[in-house]
Amino acid sequence: MRAEESTCAAPRINPEMTGDSVHSVFIWLVDRESKEGRAAFEWAMKKFIKDLPYAQSFHFGRVIASEREVVDSSYDYSFIVSFNSEEDMRRYETDPAHKTFLTETKELIDHIVIYDSRDSME
Amino acid sequence: MRAEESTCAAPRINPEMTGDSVHSVFIWLVDRESKEGRAAFEWAMKKFIKDLPYAQSFHFGRVIASEREVVDSSYDYSFIVSFNSEEDMRRYETDPAHKTFLTETKELIDHIVIYDSRDSME
Repeated sequence: MRAEESTCAAPRINPEMTGDSVHSVFIWLVDRESKEGRAAFEWAMKKFIKDLPYAQSFHFGRVIASEREVVDSSYDYSFIVSFNSEEDMRRYETDPAHKTFLTETKELIDHIVIYDSRDSME
Repeated sequence: MRAEESTCAAPRINPEMTGDSVHSVFIWLVDRESKEGRAAFEWAMKKFIKDLPYAQSFHFGRVIASEREVVDSSYDYSFIVSFNSEEDMRRYETDPAHKTFLTETKELIDHIVIYDSRDSME
């Protein structure tokens, strides 16, 4: 019955993210209960994303709460962005659009944690 | 000279990652210096990725070292995977392929940190 089982299985797609170098940022707001603070942060983030320098793909997300011990759900927003190379990631960091975003959001952000990683599939 | 400036600018692509719910896992190995440990972990990870249940896109990466204070480069591997819904993310967590992967790697992993997030672009 292999053929039938195969027909019934959910399709599996799994494409690799575009871009070899991935920059994952997790953001804790000063006041996570403030609607104005959240609106101001989202406005600045979406404006930045519209013209994101050097990026290949991105995810801008809001925390999903979890009770699992290994899941950190104390943060507020995630921003995951990929680049074709580490050089492009460094260019992004010093791009004027990035600096504008940092200036617009610095009063809203308590702290961030960043993880940078390079494709390990080859 | 707007037109010329526009012609000279780098192309900006920035597609949103496929999948609304993103599961970001950062992994610290028991022994980051062990070539055998790294090879065994990568083997299990790549085997798991070949048939990743419910996933829409993924990134499997190795840490990029950084001296920046906000960058955590103490971890060894990142695994970022997106799903069409939170329900698919939960199904992935309990899928037999995921359980096999956890069994195969539990002696190699010191600890992990997970961040789950939902698309916030709408």
